[in-house]
Amino acid sequence: MSEMTAVRMTAWQEPPEVVRIPVPEPGPGEVLVKVAGAGVCHSDLHVMEWPAGTLPYDLPFTLGHETAGRVHTLGPGTRDSGLREGDAVLVYGPWGCGICPSCARGAENYCHRAAELKAAGGGLGADGGMAEYMIVPSPRLLTPLGDLDPGTAAALADAALTPYHAVKRSLHRLVPGTAAVVIGVGGLGHMAVQLLKALSPADVIAVDTSPDKLDLAAEAGADHRVPAGESAAGRIRDLTGGLGAALVLDCVGADATMATAAGAAAVEADITVVGLAGGTLPFRYGTLPWEVSVSIPYWGTRPELAEVAALARAGRIRPHLETHPLADAVEVYRRLREGRVAGRAVLVPED
Amino acid sequence: MSEMTAVRMTAWQEPPEVVRIPVPEPGPGEVLVKVAGAGVCHSDLHVMEWPAGTLPYDLPFTLGHETAGRVHTLGPGTRDSGLREGDAVLVYGPWGCGICPSCARGAENYCHRAAELKAAGGGLGADGGMAEYMIVPSPRLLTPLGDLDPGTAAALADAALTPYHAVKRSLHRLVPGTAAVVIGVGGLGHMAVQLLKALSPADVIAVDTSPDKLDLAAEAGADHRVPAGESAAGRIRDLTGGLGAALVLDCVGADATMATAAGAAAVEADITVVGLAGGTLPFRYGTLPWEVSVSIPYWGTRPELAEVAALARAGRIRPHLETHPLADAVEVYRRLREGRVAGRAVLVPED
Amino acid sequence: MSEMTAVRMTAWQEPPEVVRIPVPEPGPGEVLVKVAGAGVCHSDLHVMEWPAGTLPYDLPFTLGHETAGRVHTLGPGTRDSGLREGDAVLVYGPWGCGICPSCARGAENYCHRAAELKAAGGGLGADGGMAEYMIVPSPRLLTPLGDLDPGTAAALADAALTPYHAVKRSLHRLVPGTAAVVIGVGGLGHMAVQLLKALSPADVIAVDTSPDKLDLAAEAGADHRVPAGESAAGRIRDLTGGLGAALVLDCVGADATMATAAGAAAVEADITVVGLAGGTLPFRYGTLPWEVSVSIPYWGTRPELAEVAALARAGRIRPHLETHPLADAVEVYRRLREGRVAGRAVLVPED
Amino acid sequence: MSEMTAVRMTAWQEPPEVVRIPVPEPGPGEVLVKVAGAGVCHSDLHVMEWPAGTLPYDLPFTLGHETAGRVHTLGPGTRDSGLREGDAVLVYGPWGCGICPSCARGAENYCHRAAELKAAGGGLGADGGMAEYMIVPSPRLLTPLGDLDPGTAAALADAALTPYHAVKRSLHRLVPGTAAVVIGVGGLGHMAVQLLKALSPADVIAVDTSPDKLDLAAEAGADHRVPAGESAAGRIRDLTGGLGAALVLDCVGADATMATAAGAAAVEADITVVGLAGGTLPFRYGTLPWEVSVSIPYWGTRPELAEVAALARAGRIRPHLETHPLADAVEVYRRLREGRVAGRAVLVPED
Repeated sequence: MSEMTAVRMTAWQEPPEVVRIPVPEPGPGEVLVKVAGAGVCHSDLHVMEWPAGTLPYDLPFTLGHETAGRVHTLGPGTRDSGLREGDAVLVYGPWGCGICPSCARGAENYCHRAAELKAAGGGLGADGGMAEYMIVPSPRLLTPLGDLDPGTAAALADAALTPYHAVKRSLHRLVPGTAAVVIGVGGLGHMAVQLLKALSPADVIAVDTSPDKLDLAAEAGADHRVPAGESAAGRIRDLTGGLGAALVLDCVGADATMATAAGAAAVEADITVVGLAGGTLPFRYGTLPWEVSVSIPYWGTRPELAEVAALARAGRIRPHLETHPLADAVEVYRRLREGRVAGRAVLVPED
Repeated sequence: MSEMTAVRMTAWQEPPEVVRIPVPEPGPGEVLVKVAGAGVCHSDLHVMEWPAGTLPYDLPFTLGHETAGRVHTLGPGTRDSGLREGDAVLVYGPWGCGICPSCARGAENYCHRAAELKAAGGGLGADGGMAEYMIVPSPRLLTPLGDLDPGTAAALADAALTPYHAVKRSLHRLVPGTAAVVIGVGGLGHMAVQLLKALSPADVIAVDTSPDKLDLAAEAGADHRVPAGESAAGRIRDLTGGLGAALVLDCVGADATMATAAGAAAVEADITVVGLAGGTLPFRYGTLPWEVSVSIPYWGTRPELAEVAALARAGRIRPHLETHPLADAVEVYRRLREGRVAGRAVLVPED
Repeated sequence: MSEMTAVRMTAWQEPPEVVRIPVPEPGPGEVLVKVAGAGVCHSDLHVMEWPAGTLPYDLPFTLGHETAGRVHTLGPGTRDSGLREGDAVLVYGPWGCGICPSCARGAENYCHRAAELKAAGGGLGADGGMAEYMIVPSPRLLTPLGDLDPGTAAALADAALTPYHAVKRSLHRLVPGTAAVVIGVGGLGHMAVQLLKALSPADVIAVDTSPDKLDLAAEAGADHRVPAGESAAGRIRDLTGGLGAALVLDCVGADATMATAAGAAAVEADITVVGLAGGTLPFRYGTLPWEVSVSIPYWGTRPELAEVAALARAGRIRPHLETHPLADAVEVYRRLREGRVAGRAVLVPED
Repeated sequence: MSEMTAVRMTAWQEPPEVVRIPVPEPGPGEVLVKVAGAGVCHSDLHVMEWPAGTLPYDLPFTLGHETAGRVHTLGPGTRDSGLREGDAVLVYGPWGCGICPSCARGAENYCHRAAELKAAGGGLGADGGMAEYMIVPSPRLLTPLGDLDPGTAAALADAALTPYHAVKRSLHRLVPGTAAVVIGVGGLGHMAVQLLKALSPADVIAVDTSPDKLDLAAEAGADHRVPAGESAAGRIRDLTGGLGAALVLDCVGADATMATAAGAAAVEADITVVGLAGGTLPFRYGTLPWEVSVSIPYWGTRPELAEVAALARAGRIRPHLETHPLADAVEVYRRLREGRVAGRAVLVPED
């Protein structure tokens, strides 16, 4: 039986380990994917910090919930899925039951039976994509990439899908003449800027503390850059003729960024928080313009991932990447924690 | 091996035959359902009329695309579906690939790969519900009925789901003060009236040639009854203060009913044809008020079937039924063709 | 020149005064309405409490922002409005500029130029409906009542319109099988229950501290009554199979009710606060299910008021009223402050 | 009293006349606009062809229903409109009552009281923009242009607004990976291509008989050009992986173009006809994929015109223009009838 390298959570509140484990074989209904890249995501840092018993996952498991690769082996009963060996695919990350009313519409991120399931997805309790091969439990969880190179596509599965979902639900607000704000131009934020330009006619305003990240935002298509801080909300009001922005996407989620969001929002705007820095917005009469909606969505749906792949195929979005070998996983997570990754870091198995 | 009675298409352009066949066993991923009732639908009459070679189905197959029953045997690999043996279920009728972008959002009625599939569903190329038992290819195609009696629920799977889909897509138009018209109060029409009352504040106007069917409409909750014919459109305009109806649901689909629909529609209305009597509406400038949308949808989605089941559980809709033994299938189809069925006829296996 | 009785704000932080003032005459574009009833609203209590200088209104002005009556005199240039003298009308309350993009779609509650205008509406800086006659600045601000008695209709203009707006924006979530919660069954809350039953198939759950108000909710059509308090959210989860409610309408807006709302909401629910008791919901990761949207809307739009009037005409909603003479205004406001009004109190001029 | 040049309908079934008439003065509520440009529209050719008595308009009246200019004189009672003399403005074309439920939401194109009104708008029964000055009945019918030159903006009021409305109502279908087809790249069509690119991520496919117009489409941003004709629908299916287009905008409206639209549409697509060449689509089971909606909208709404102006200000759309003096009106209409205008022809008063 052949072996492979994998980046695994083996103990709570410890860094992951790079180990050798057997290459798995796909059972009935399953698909074995040869991994081309697995993204390194902020949320993994939280997984690593939680004390034993907080998450319902059994250890060990392989990390990597943002994965692209090629179909390697179709397990029994998956031949009529339309997939063929060698097809480039994205792995849809949040694995639901596939049957409940949410899963029935493709929103496995909001599976009604999530609490019954042993894992939230590959890399989140089940073995994920930071390995040479990965088992995916059903063909329905694979999104064809067509002629896109899977080596550069992994970031679509989370860094793009999460802001795509957040933007799509607000598109009806982003009519011509409105503005959208992206706070925090990291892995998700730099994709959010590109997505807003590809999907809407809104003016896009990027906010960050770092001039380099504002430069990245400008490359991504942002119409305006605003330095983070207490004056940011006022600056956004000025840029929007006093009305504020119809959508504020907070990719940080700290007290300060949520306060900026509240100050920058227009009447009837959406403030959508996709960064989980632990901040609080005291929601009450007077802190927000009328009918501003505040929410924290989670990831995206299966149909949305297909739409993200289509955008990438059309060249409308392109993750800004740095790639590293699997063996460097621990070091890359450290750099991410220190804010030293520009765009998205992706771990790539050696061939 | 045990046997069962089944109503099967054995030759094109012939009535079905009632025969004895083996009880099937569920393979991997499949579920065996013990049938409690299978609806007798107008569209089967068309299936029976088509010459050999028109439809891509292999003969023989068991009829019945509107089925309710109880889970009898869970095939290998379906144990974690949340279903248990004995559960009352509806069979979702249009079987898609489960993977393409339409299926991913539960719209298997519009599967992108429909042309590749050998059957459109159970009773439509694959073995359907007019038998004592039925194989369903995946748990995802079963909708729990909860404590509803499956013996009276079969009609929900098509006679209710089809107008539910048609009504739901127009609900945004049915604001207070508007009217909705149902033309043809048969199997689908009498459910449409109930659905409109349950889902919207619109005034409901029923149109039919038969006084008995208009009585059925009134029982179902229609606010107004209008005899079919050339004066019907004018009568509807009078009932709506000259504005016309925001939705016209044509459950017949003949030249005359489509002309009534055109004459009864308000500016920006939807005319939705769910009856397939072969009529034509000459669509051009001047035949319809501005921005009236005309369309012919097909069946409904998986999430919609769960919503239909919830309405029935809440007692908000209730099919008007007549039940018959499987053995009488040929006779019941004849009565349906002659317009002598009130509401829906359902075939029930003997216990 | 003839005189009339009016209930006026004459000093900040004082109760209103009942005084005699001249009957006004309508200028160009204006309409004089003979008042049939003016609702007594909680928000007036706040107006009375604010220190001088807080609100941008000049004193004195007549109170009453929830008014119904009959067209008495059409001012110059309003003849072609379609209105006729004697027509029963509702006065649309939030008076915008009529021209900006929000007003252009009838959302004068969110007029872009609100800060430039001297008053927010009749009874809110301009003279309102607590008088025998009232000037309305434009025919566009009058909604025909048809054959409804304006004496019982005033509450539609705010107590019904405000929850109507709040419910309508969430109707897409209220599919069959979902639940909606109304917290606080007062003037707005008892209308909210009726509106939910008229507009949606959702199960309606009413929450209040007072058994009498829960009885009023049941009369209004609520499917379930839940006593307010710490166990309320758990009780709602039980009633909804653990999923929570798709909409929680908080008609109180205190710390405790917002906490109940957070505990009772389903994934992707809307929590909509229309009561202004000054509570705070600490919005952060972990306090709410995924993608719950929290917002505080203000009143409703012109098209929505026409829809409310249509619902009332159809007998689908009916405010629970107590009526009092104008002269008793001060006493009625006191009873309202003490929570001793059931449904809505309306001041009625003597004939 | 000063005079001005105007292009007027003076007799039915005759070309218009260029005459001298007095400069009008604005009455109460009205605004006098100094015209900077008035577009020459196909629909005027139909107006000129109709026999006396067909249209409810009194002769003579000045043509021009697509007008931009500057506020010249604010009539009595319009001072608080926010407009100032000299402001660049678009004239919203379809003049409704301003009060009915359609007008209340800004859809004056669908005014419920249209039949009671003597004119459909300026240039359509009332005096329009083909003159040096034009009376507009209310400030609400003027959309600020900001710093856009009104001399080049007239085409926004119809050639852009009409396809904008048609595109906006279908935007929810134009997700990444879908395609939109524009048939006929004339005045409306070349704007439709630009609008689709500005508003959606859909692939845009332009269809025309003329290579020059296909070139104009490519300049406007079309991703693919397809020659009109019997093979066009097949070519579009090929370009869309066999699925067809999610929106087909038929800017011609002839039998042949509607047949192409039917052949090119995807399941659940919208076919939206904005050209009025008198064609017919025989709508029946089998001529269209499932749930394709066919409709003919009319113009657009007030909020939509503000959105069109915002797009133009942002440089996202730009009408392709040829300008002519008012005196050449008859000649320009002739060239339009002969298909010899590229983009839009605009008549410009001499200064």
